[in-house]
Amino acid sequence: ADIAAGKAKAAVCAACHGANGISIIPDYPNLAGQKVKYLESSIKAYRDGERKNPIMSPMASGLTDADVANIAAYFASLPGGG
Amino acid sequence: ADIAAGKAKAAVCAACHGANGISIIPDYPNLAGQKVKYLESSIKAYRDGERKNPIMSPMASGLTDADVANIAAYFASLPGGG
Repeated sequence: ADIAAGKAKAAVCAACHGANGISIIPDYPNLAGQKVKYLESSIKAYRDGERKNPIMSPMASGLTDADVANIAAYFASLPGGG
Repeated sequence: ADIAAGKAKAAVCAACHGANGISIIPDYPNLAGQKVKYLESSIKAYRDGERKNPIMSPMASGLTDADVANIAAYFASLPGGG
């Protein structure tokens, strides 16, 4: 995966998940240091409709598998404690 | 919430999510340092059928709201980086 491409693609995610992957809003998960495979399956769950959320579903809808892999690799690369 | 009660109730969770809340298995999320409200809503999603998973659904099925609050508080209290 391409972490730099993931970081660029994830710019919009920072609004809720924090610039360092530690969420600003208590309802939204921290993503920093999360497992890559779990991040990928979660993003795809929103993209493919397995999980439904008024914010995440549209966010994920346009992503290619490569985008998902890059975004997941980026957040997984951030230190878990923020 | 009662973190000690949550720790006791979460003993079974360690098998997949790790004794320190950092998952051993790449498919399963780290829970350490996660947001309390997100942990609560996720556990309830499995308990109440919004999320379906062959392992997590039965795991969550018997939990009371107090159990959920305690378990969530416990994992949120663990250091995010493990």
